[in-house]
Amino acid sequence: MPELRQDPVTKRWVVVAKERAKRPDDFVKRDGGSSPRVCPFEYGNESMTPPETLAFRPGELPPDSPDWTIRVVPNKFPVFTPENHDETINGLYLSRKAYGAHEVIIHGPQHELSLATYPTHQVAEVLRAYKLRYNYHKNQPYARYIQIIINHGKSAGASLEHSHSQLFVAPVLPELPAAQLHGAAEYYNENGHCIYCKIISQELAINERVVEKTDNFLAFVPFAAKLPFETWIVPLRHRPKFEDISNDEIEELAFIFGNTLRRFYNGLNDPPYNMYLHTSPPGYDPTDTYHWHMSIIPKLTIPAGFELGTGMWIDITIPEAAAKFLRNAAP
Amino acid sequence: MPELRQDPVTKRWVVVAKERAKRPDDFVKRDGGSSPRVCPFEYGNESMTPPETLAFRPGELPPDSPDWTIRVVPNKFPVFTPENHDETINGLYLSRKAYGAHEVIIHGPQHELSLATYPTHQVAEVLRAYKLRYNYHKNQPYARYIQIIINHGKSAGASLEHSHSQLFVAPVLPELPAAQLHGAAEYYNENGHCIYCKIISQELAINERVVEKTDNFLAFVPFAAKLPFETWIVPLRHRPKFEDISNDEIEELAFIFGNTLRRFYNGLNDPPYNMYLHTSPPGYDPTDTYHWHMSIIPKLTIPAGFELGTGMWIDITIPEAAAKFLRNAAP
Repeated sequence: MPELRQDPVTKRWVVVAKERAKRPDDFVKRDGGSSPRVCPFEYGNESMTPPETLAFRPGELPPDSPDWTIRVVPNKFPVFTPENHDETINGLYLSRKAYGAHEVIIHGPQHELSLATYPTHQVAEVLRAYKLRYNYHKNQPYARYIQIIINHGKSAGASLEHSHSQLFVAPVLPELPAAQLHGAAEYYNENGHCIYCKIISQELAINERVVEKTDNFLAFVPFAAKLPFETWIVPLRHRPKFEDISNDEIEELAFIFGNTLRRFYNGLNDPPYNMYLHTSPPGYDPTDTYHWHMSIIPKLTIPAGFELGTGMWIDITIPEAAAKFLRNAAP
Repeated sequence: MPELRQDPVTKRWVVVAKERAKRPDDFVKRDGGSSPRVCPFEYGNESMTPPETLAFRPGELPPDSPDWTIRVVPNKFPVFTPENHDETINGLYLSRKAYGAHEVIIHGPQHELSLATYPTHQVAEVLRAYKLRYNYHKNQPYARYIQIIINHGKSAGASLEHSHSQLFVAPVLPELPAAQLHGAAEYYNENGHCIYCKIISQELAINERVVEKTDNFLAFVPFAAKLPFETWIVPLRHRPKFEDISNDEIEELAFIFGNTLRRFYNGLNDPPYNMYLHTSPPGYDPTDTYHWHMSIIPKLTIPAGFELGTGMWIDITIPEAAAKFLRNAAP
């Protein structure tokens, strides 16, 4: 099963996912394309995935039958598994089993559609599945941190073309959310309010990086966007936990999230992209300090040696210009 | 000129490199390849680059003439420039001019060769250029941190095919080296010796992840390798600063570095790769705590939404298996 190994210097965890591991010689670059495969995420191929953990279907159909609208299944090559959490220490080196969970949320049955082309009510179903599965996992003993993501398109890391999200449950708090929680808590201690609420009011006042605003949500390009066209979607009012989202808010989020993806789709010609959802970790108490947000990043450049060596990002668009371009793109 | 913007939550800096910035619509995905270009790094095209800052040439030839063996030039689209360091504060948002330097080290005149196929003495010349330019920049007022890297191959982020390195001089200490320096100093304070020296002795004792050992250097796959086949090269004895390397050590480093690249070249069929060199920052005083090292990472997988959202890496090879594979590959 997969393993977590701790970097002895930085104390950061890396996942060594043996279950996904090819043999070393499988990496040898070869000519010729891969042969076409049967898609395990389509109607009729339900037996190709592990048994579902959630599905939306009309009526009284049995699990793992066709005619679902959303289907959630364990990842066949999981990065985290709920099996055990043994720890091993060897001198400087600490490792532990990668205790947790890893699921796939299939966005719908139609292979040729994606969240930019599905209707809004289908996007809302996906978000509803996020909420349900988040609420399930957050109470499990392995849940220290839950990361929901989308990889859309091969060059954004999608190994299957059929539109889907992934939900990872990790037994440790990873480096980036830890840094955000730390920074947000520090700001709160000094200023008595949420830094993300402050960012939102400053973005609305400056009005240079706003892409779209609805009654309850804001889509904007962050001041220090890491990569070209990075766009955040945040609730306008203070909301520490994504999983507390109401049904009405889900409809509205589906609308602005779908619009943002359509701006990418229309403006940048269906680019590959990554999405990640940051929210307060399970059991995280000082909920005044954090504020959930989604980040959507089209995959347009290749982070390379500088980014690997420094952890510092280079954005070759100006965030204000990127926001203007997206505002003018058809939603 | 390029700008540094600070993320208001994590306090990490991002470079917004306007000089490299295409207009937003240049990102729109189009069909068809790019037209062939003239390579600015070949003999006779010296006028296509900014004037050289260093070159190795036999005899008394003038600057920017052909017949060089190594040539260093400012990057034409710099991420950092030595112009000014104005700071701007706007509410929560802090930005400053990206004061610093950004150079290209051209590995040799032959377009079809790379560090894996050049002879060892040419690799040594490249390392000698690293040392000379490092020593030049470390005394400049903008030098808070110097990052030397290689991007080899298009999918590893190389925008020009002709084999070259890049040297970045930043006016801030980036996140990852800061975390390493912090972790190494903490270990030193608790244990009274360098953590990297300890890692080296443990790797030699375990002898599972060693790729090659010479009198003064070790090539090994780290215990918590971030990505498949990540390989480190470190001096066996305590060496905080790369720029203090002796001429003899340069020859030996060129040998083991070239061997490592040839193991990649032969074993993995000339994969794209990134290299970065970590060394004590200019003026960094507690030099007992840090230990310079090179990391070489073939670009075989695509870090995606999980890595972007968490800062946590997934390695789908087992480090011990990767080391065995590389040991058995022809150097």
